[in-house]
Amino acid sequence: MSSHWMPAQPGDALADVDTPALILDLDRFDTNLGRLMDAARDAGVRVRPHAKSHKSLQIAHRQIGAGAIGVCCQKVGEAEVFLAGGIKDVLITNEIVGERKLRRLAQLAGMFSQSRVGVCVDDASVVRKLAVVCDEEDGHLDVYIELDVGQNRAGVQDAAAAVELAREVMAYPRLTLMGLQAYAGSAQHRRGVPERKAAVESAVQRAAEVRTALREAGLPCEIITGGGTGTFMYEALSGVFGEIQPGSFALMDSDYARNEVDPDVPPFEHALFILSTVMSLRGDRATLDAGLKAFSTDSGPARPTFAGWHVHAVSDEHTVLTRVDDEGPTIHLGAKALLIPSHCDPTVNLHDWMVAIRKNKVEDVWRVDARGAVF
Amino acid sequence: MSSHWMPAQPGDALADVDTPALILDLDRFDTNLGRLMDAARDAGVRVRPHAKSHKSLQIAHRQIGAGAIGVCCQKVGEAEVFLAGGIKDVLITNEIVGERKLRRLAQLAGMFSQSRVGVCVDDASVVRKLAVVCDEEDGHLDVYIELDVGQNRAGVQDAAAAVELAREVMAYPRLTLMGLQAYAGSAQHRRGVPERKAAVESAVQRAAEVRTALREAGLPCEIITGGGTGTFMYEALSGVFGEIQPGSFALMDSDYARNEVDPDVPPFEHALFILSTVMSLRGDRATLDAGLKAFSTDSGPARPTFAGWHVHAVSDEHTVLTRVDDEGPTIHLGAKALLIPSHCDPTVNLHDWMVAIRKNKVEDVWRVDARGAVF
Repeated sequence: MSSHWMPAQPGDALADVDTPALILDLDRFDTNLGRLMDAARDAGVRVRPHAKSHKSLQIAHRQIGAGAIGVCCQKVGEAEVFLAGGIKDVLITNEIVGERKLRRLAQLAGMFSQSRVGVCVDDASVVRKLAVVCDEEDGHLDVYIELDVGQNRAGVQDAAAAVELAREVMAYPRLTLMGLQAYAGSAQHRRGVPERKAAVESAVQRAAEVRTALREAGLPCEIITGGGTGTFMYEALSGVFGEIQPGSFALMDSDYARNEVDPDVPPFEHALFILSTVMSLRGDRATLDAGLKAFSTDSGPARPTFAGWHVHAVSDEHTVLTRVDDEGPTIHLGAKALLIPSHCDPTVNLHDWMVAIRKNKVEDVWRVDARGAVF
Repeated sequence: MSSHWMPAQPGDALADVDTPALILDLDRFDTNLGRLMDAARDAGVRVRPHAKSHKSLQIAHRQIGAGAIGVCCQKVGEAEVFLAGGIKDVLITNEIVGERKLRRLAQLAGMFSQSRVGVCVDDASVVRKLAVVCDEEDGHLDVYIELDVGQNRAGVQDAAAAVELAREVMAYPRLTLMGLQAYAGSAQHRRGVPERKAAVESAVQRAAEVRTALREAGLPCEIITGGGTGTFMYEALSGVFGEIQPGSFALMDSDYARNEVDPDVPPFEHALFILSTVMSLRGDRATLDAGLKAFSTDSGPARPTFAGWHVHAVSDEHTVLTRVDDEGPTIHLGAKALLIPSHCDPTVNLHDWMVAIRKNKVEDVWRVDARGAVF
């Protein structure tokens, strides 16, 4: 019921948007998208932006309009939203386990047979189950072997395991072995440029070795895909990766902004904000109406875009700012404050609506279509 | 769209629930509710549970069925959900600022004129605006002066400010001055019993002083309300508070469980869990399909209910467990793992559905009705 409360209408001034609201600055979004696509084109790689960050059909279609091949997502429920919303190529960069989810994935592949639907695997028993449900639901899937290239999370560990799993995939006509998912997740937030480069270099080397092993075994490896906002340029220029998967570049957050800048990589601007209202004011203490339910704090609190005020405390529905010097604005009760989220993905997932603005005016209000798609 | 993906049906076994799912153990929930209501009855105070924790009409109605006077919430959007869902007494324990929200609040008060609708204030300009919109929308509101009793967030600072604000409220016939909101929020998580008792003692003293000042000024102060799960018993036994507002007691989380136990206060059991699935397994490393989008980490990660496995890393959609000793279970791919959230409020807010179980069987699946009601 509450989700019908739209925070704004097209034409509203930013200052009149109800709060706490998720704000997307379209000029900055356009700039980020253009820079990413130009860089990828120059490097000769395909772009498959990660839609787990934005969860938005509006954004996905803009990315594809700018030349992206399709989108990535993490969940079958997300894939459902993007396929039903007209995205023709959706890759789940994640393992799917459990009868119900596997069947739903096969059903989606069957229902959207004009689209490409892909998934990652790291276990033969899951491949066999996938083959069974794809037969039963008349679905065809693109399959990528996930290779652990340093994330220490999912994925096969070495070339021998990859070859064995690839043979299993090849046994089933409804599963098309596409190549390797090789995402160096933990490398994205290493602060120094040399550390990020070294992590990707190691990932590139491992992926290349596994590709060689697959080909020597007579198995296909058409594409190696991976790379996030922190490293995509290194994967793009590796000569090994054919596709990159950055997500956060579209929105940006303060965690990514803390990475050391590499002058050879296009910079991205903060395009995502939380608009909040000063709901209580006492001397040099201002309480905002946005807290843990309006932004995630796993990478620190959201922080004001203006100087002079410091985040003192965050609770469920409040952020308390305290004045630290005279640099910043004088705040009054009812004033609006823009905050920069620390981590865009879980922040976007808290909101039903994304308010798209241009030059401080509301251009449109978009549903966060795949919000809450945890299954 | 994704929200139509229900994780279970009544009658399902817990092990068959789709994941990641929010699980409510009804036996434990009933135990917690009974203990709280018994303690409050013995102490002679009213109970107004905080619904910002559970956001559920099913739970709110059960709490009222057990003797609660109504519920608290933090947002106008939450109040709308609970009023429309048949709750007859809803108090917003928070200041509401901004024309649109104030008007909506007055409209709700007008639409649900058979119910009591309350709100907190700490500023005279907001009281005046409230009076105007209540006139225009034909709404009557209960008004509580919020007193800052140590939270350092919102609320008036002293008796003089409270008296001045109370006079302002009394000037408007559609606003009924009820008393004081005196919530010692920061006291809830002080670990030691003596620290929590001392914080409440100070809050009680401040609230009593302000009540005296109000009465000496000829102003009403029918009730003083406040108290959370960490301290409610001290407010209840103070002789000053007439109503308590605990929320988390119904569900519990690991943060509250870290408080030193007071043998004179009824204990509460973990009734809320996240059910997850092992989606990748490699030696002594198990990756679960629940991460930052299935539980909040502001008070630490969700942790397994079983021994022998440690939370190594949490990312957007994954939690990586590593084996630390041989105490725990052997984990297989596809196994289900129950996790205890660290902070129930922002965790519940991530989910569209709450799966209510009894003795490992699904009794019902409830909408998290006020999920995302940030406005």
